[in-house]
Amino acid sequence: MSALPNAHGGSGLTPRLLQGSKLHDERRRAQSLPAIPVSSRERGDLIMLGIGGFTPLDGFMTAGDWRSVCRDMRLENGLFWPIPITVSASHAHADTFNEGADIALVDAGGEIVATMTVIEKYSIDKAFECRSVFRTEDSEHPGVRMVMAQAEVNLAGPVRVLSDGGFAQRYPGLFMTPEQTRTAFAAKGWSKVAAFQTRNPMHRSHEYLAKIAVETCDGVLVHSLLGNLKPGDIPADVRTRAIGALIDNYFVADTVLQSGYPLDMRYAGPREALLHALFRQNYGCAYQIIGRDHAGVGSYYGPFDAHRIFDEIPHDALETKPLKIDWTFWCYRCGGMASERTCPHAPEDRLLLSGTKLRKMLSEGTAVPAEFSRPEVLDILRAYYAGLDEKVEVKLSGHSAR
Amino acid sequence: MSALPNAHGGSGLTPRLLQGSKLHDERRRAQSLPAIPVSSRERGDLIMLGIGGFTPLDGFMTAGDWRSVCRDMRLENGLFWPIPITVSASHAHADTFNEGADIALVDAGGEIVATMTVIEKYSIDKAFECRSVFRTEDSEHPGVRMVMAQAEVNLAGPVRVLSDGGFAQRYPGLFMTPEQTRTAFAAKGWSKVAAFQTRNPMHRSHEYLAKIAVETCDGVLVHSLLGNLKPGDIPADVRTRAIGALIDNYFVADTVLQSGYPLDMRYAGPREALLHALFRQNYGCAYQIIGRDHAGVGSYYGPFDAHRIFDEIPHDALETKPLKIDWTFWCYRCGGMASERTCPHAPEDRLLLSGTKLRKMLSEGTAVPAEFSRPEVLDILRAYYAGLDEKVEVKLSGHSAR
Repeated sequence: MSALPNAHGGSGLTPRLLQGSKLHDERRRAQSLPAIPVSSRERGDLIMLGIGGFTPLDGFMTAGDWRSVCRDMRLENGLFWPIPITVSASHAHADTFNEGADIALVDAGGEIVATMTVIEKYSIDKAFECRSVFRTEDSEHPGVRMVMAQAEVNLAGPVRVLSDGGFAQRYPGLFMTPEQTRTAFAAKGWSKVAAFQTRNPMHRSHEYLAKIAVETCDGVLVHSLLGNLKPGDIPADVRTRAIGALIDNYFVADTVLQSGYPLDMRYAGPREALLHALFRQNYGCAYQIIGRDHAGVGSYYGPFDAHRIFDEIPHDALETKPLKIDWTFWCYRCGGMASERTCPHAPEDRLLLSGTKLRKMLSEGTAVPAEFSRPEVLDILRAYYAGLDEKVEVKLSGHSAR
Repeated sequence: MSALPNAHGGSGLTPRLLQGSKLHDERRRAQSLPAIPVSSRERGDLIMLGIGGFTPLDGFMTAGDWRSVCRDMRLENGLFWPIPITVSASHAHADTFNEGADIALVDAGGEIVATMTVIEKYSIDKAFECRSVFRTEDSEHPGVRMVMAQAEVNLAGPVRVLSDGGFAQRYPGLFMTPEQTRTAFAAKGWSKVAAFQTRNPMHRSHEYLAKIAVETCDGVLVHSLLGNLKPGDIPADVRTRAIGALIDNYFVADTVLQSGYPLDMRYAGPREALLHALFRQNYGCAYQIIGRDHAGVGSYYGPFDAHRIFDEIPHDALETKPLKIDWTFWCYRCGGMASERTCPHAPEDRLLLSGTKLRKMLSEGTAVPAEFSRPEVLDILRAYYAGLDEKVEVKLSGHSAR
């Protein structure tokens, strides 16, 4: 039996989270350092650096790495990397310290997430980053908006992470480090693990994708994004409960591991699909399932751009390979789940529900076909939307009462 | 994009079928050679040698190769080979020529299928071959029975094949040589092709196996055995028509190629699964689908012995790798096709029909659940069994009239 894939870079995991007395001492020292606020995305990246998900990065990228990653999807040392991992500060903040200084990175809740030795301050061409990474400069794109909202000065240098962001406490048993998933895979005797990336509840189309992987691999890691999404998306606690209900009722226990990771969505489509494969390699997965419009948003990417980009990178860029699967759905003539590759029938034979339509059905109490989603999953979503509607009503009535 | 796997041995296909004037001349010469009868299995092997399916063999095995293949699954030169490919003659026949002589190999219909230069005559320990290849000496095993029925003297040497056995004419468009399937794959732009081995009509469980391969590979070769089976099995023309109906109605045209190959079944279970993968490598397939009890018969093999044996051979024995899939069925609680790996429900939630029960339902006109088999397939099988019953009735009434 072959082993799990190597961590990216080939020299083992490089978690940046301090432990024990080192953590204690660094937390004390951090109090006296210049405090620089970080965005939600930057905080997620720090926690990922902390747990070793971004191995072998030791911190935020230099100007040289940033440019090389944008242009050629590689660090200056040649290692494959598809998306810049950067932190930024305003001029007002950046002027309070010189290159070489140590700083404290503070999240919106006031917690010092990490300390950092700043080896370089630099400014970037944000439009160039957006064109390179997102293939657009359109400010409607949520990833573009995040880059455009960054402060003026990028800061490069190694970080020492002081917190897991509370994810372990908020998602007990669900939030796992790459070291932990690798240990879990080994304990199960798995070597060929496929990662199923999700930022949504899983309906039958997603179950089908994951089960194709179960049929052909040792197991599947159902890996939920636990960071932030764009407004209107279903929050992580609801999503992960719905996924848990699906797994409990429709999966064989020894074929699946449900877990989560701390990043925010960038919505970079093809480039983010590559990042997903990269960090899943660190988590020990040999395959990354890539479905239709992976990590996309709106209509910025062709539905299979994220398939094609894996053919455009060097063969040895990543050990983790894509498991490319076409658009999936229930087909009434097939009498089963299928994809564009396995169903020869017409669109009208297929059950298709948009997210908008599903939400409307759930809110209004209309029955959703069992061929679209499992009743156990729908119950959880229905309760969530009912709660939302109550809040909206409370807000509206509060408003009208003024 | 990677290329198709190399022919076994790595030096290109080695078809032994003569062409043009060489064929004409050899046919004439063959008339004057000692005529040795061959069995149905030996005839199938000759045609496979003719079309290059047994590349790089140039003929029937020597005593040294036979022993090495039985014992270690390799030729004396070290090349992986899981099952002896041999021809035998009675003492009476073998005494009519010396080692070094050329002979003509004649099938039951009187056709000279090949000529052969006999480099060695040898006798074998048939029980040793049976224990090695079939894991049993039980004479109820149809493969054992075939070996035990072989004549006393094995003949080794290179062959020149003079006929395709009429397969091309009997199965136009369906019978293809390895060269032809490779050309077809290349024309379709396929490099990652999975072979689905079948000696039965395809019901939904088989469709599901093939479609898992379609979801994850460039295409699937549905490859029917066109040689002989044990008595009572459905003949190749009926099977291939039923499979054609399934493909026409339930597969996407560009994802599947239906074809057939000329061998008889040996029922060697795990060892035959390896032979299937070996000759599929010659046909250009990167994967061989291995389901439950692959190439088995009765209860001679554990249901997943043919999975395990692929882990027991050297990593570089074959370029073609197994696509191992568990036992598959319709599950009413899943509301779909599933396997033991993807369905957590109880046996009573699943639709299971034995071959015997299916035949009874088809013969008696009972409705077969659509979750078990496609109506287009069942129509063809129903007509076949109705024809059989008529023949039986004709025979019976003829008999009673005497």
